[in-house]
Amino acid sequence: KKTPQKKTLYKRKTYAERVALFKNPTARALLELMESKRTNLSIAVDVRTAAELLKIADVCGPHICVLKTHIDILDDFKPSVVDKLRKLAEHHKFMIFEDRKFADIGNTSKQQYEGGVYRIVTWADVVNAHTVSGPGIIAGLSEAGLRQGRGLLLLAEMSSAGSLAVGEYTEKTIEMARANRDFVIGFVSARKLATGEGSDESFIYMTPGVNLDVAGDALGQQYNTPDIVIRERGSDVIIVGRGIYQAADPAAEAERYRIAGWNAYQAALLS
Amino acid sequence: KKTPQKKTLYKRKTYAERVALFKNPTARALLELMESKRTNLSIAVDVRTAAELLKIADVCGPHICVLKTHIDILDDFKPSVVDKLRKLAEHHKFMIFEDRKFADIGNTSKQQYEGGVYRIVTWADVVNAHTVSGPGIIAGLSEAGLRQGRGLLLLAEMSSAGSLAVGEYTEKTIEMARANRDFVIGFVSARKLATGEGSDESFIYMTPGVNLDVAGDALGQQYNTPDIVIRERGSDVIIVGRGIYQAADPAAEAERYRIAGWNAYQAALLS
Repeated sequence: KKTPQKKTLYKRKTYAERVALFKNPTARALLELMESKRTNLSIAVDVRTAAELLKIADVCGPHICVLKTHIDILDDFKPSVVDKLRKLAEHHKFMIFEDRKFADIGNTSKQQYEGGVYRIVTWADVVNAHTVSGPGIIAGLSEAGLRQGRGLLLLAEMSSAGSLAVGEYTEKTIEMARANRDFVIGFVSARKLATGEGSDESFIYMTPGVNLDVAGDALGQQYNTPDIVIRERGSDVIIVGRGIYQAADPAAEAERYRIAGWNAYQAALLS
Repeated sequence: KKTPQKKTLYKRKTYAERVALFKNPTARALLELMESKRTNLSIAVDVRTAAELLKIADVCGPHICVLKTHIDILDDFKPSVVDKLRKLAEHHKFMIFEDRKFADIGNTSKQQYEGGVYRIVTWADVVNAHTVSGPGIIAGLSEAGLRQGRGLLLLAEMSSAGSLAVGEYTEKTIEMARANRDFVIGFVSARKLATGEGSDESFIYMTPGVNLDVAGDALGQQYNTPDIVIRERGSDVIIVGRGIYQAADPAAEAERYRIAGWNAYQAALLS
């Protein structure tokens, strides 16, 4: 009678088991907090005032692993806003991901990352970049971010209709990630990428366009459920925007998505 | 003995002749000022202080058709900076092109265009966008920009090494431009695109990465001369950055590039 060890039945490693696959300190810390807080939920807080951002961060903070910002749509940004946001991140233990989608040549992207009024590198644990300009953007951003232990996600796919991040574009993006593992910690994508070669679990995948209740918006956004994203498509982090921050009770809704995301992860580990 | 009319020898229309091909008021005004000021030079002013930006804008203003900004690398941005820049634009008669490279989904890009601390739509005649997220970005930006008569350039190609804006990516970008001619006035590209179907001169092409003296930088940027860009590749506007703003005498250098660009245009008309 066979008595297989439970662990060998797992097709996927746990978040905790994957910590050892990363050298980047932000990637390691993120996986650790996901496991300890039992959350793979990122909330995208696309609000227009600092008060709303800080309120959502405070009430949803206990439920999330990552708070995703668009700092450049805050109509009343001041440097004190990110100081307060960092305090909330430390208090509730979440990472800050500025969804800047850097997309210029390396020299310019570097300046946009470290300079300007936002000084993103000083407060954002994670940022992301498009690869359309070529690998020089990773080199440029790395010059500003790596010495501070920051992590970079590459946009390999997008959830919007008619996206051109498909096929060879996605493949070349994966190649750029593999060539820059010190700084590139993973992808923004619709699914797990970079399968094969034993490398499939050594990147972190974050998937936007997640909603339990609606299918899309009028400007091309298309939504999926946490179960589809985490269990079927093998992603690691669900990014939920309007589904949470526009809800009447964002904290309750965040907890609803946290449970949905975590259940999908548990199901994926056992499948 | 043949005496052909001079005009029929022109393979390319003049900037002035192309005004009638556009409905967008920014495109029309740009072509008119290029002809009247005899300049197809855009200067990219990638400096980090407002004082430098305004100084360069003032001394180079008489030589240029377009001033290209990266407002988000100004370490001391205040709303008064763009007020002053607009006054210089009206005084010297040039257009302001904020090189934001919008690259998000439509709903987010629209907010980045009209909101935040920069309120780009209120002062930039022209902005640009990547098409990687799909056509929703044009719809989103158009909702903010079209009613103010602004113009959008699409990034169809990039001058940096290993760019993924090639082949089908470029072709799909051209299709998106053709489907949105009211707001899309042209491209940022290495060369004239969208040839054939009689539509080749009804977009404005702006080409970055122009330098008379050096070949590239350490982060993947690759340079071409004005003659290659305008005469050989059929572009309309040369974008010169470090070659001018880092020169000891930016005004003299701007005039040198203006002459080189205009001579290339004159040669192209006669070839």
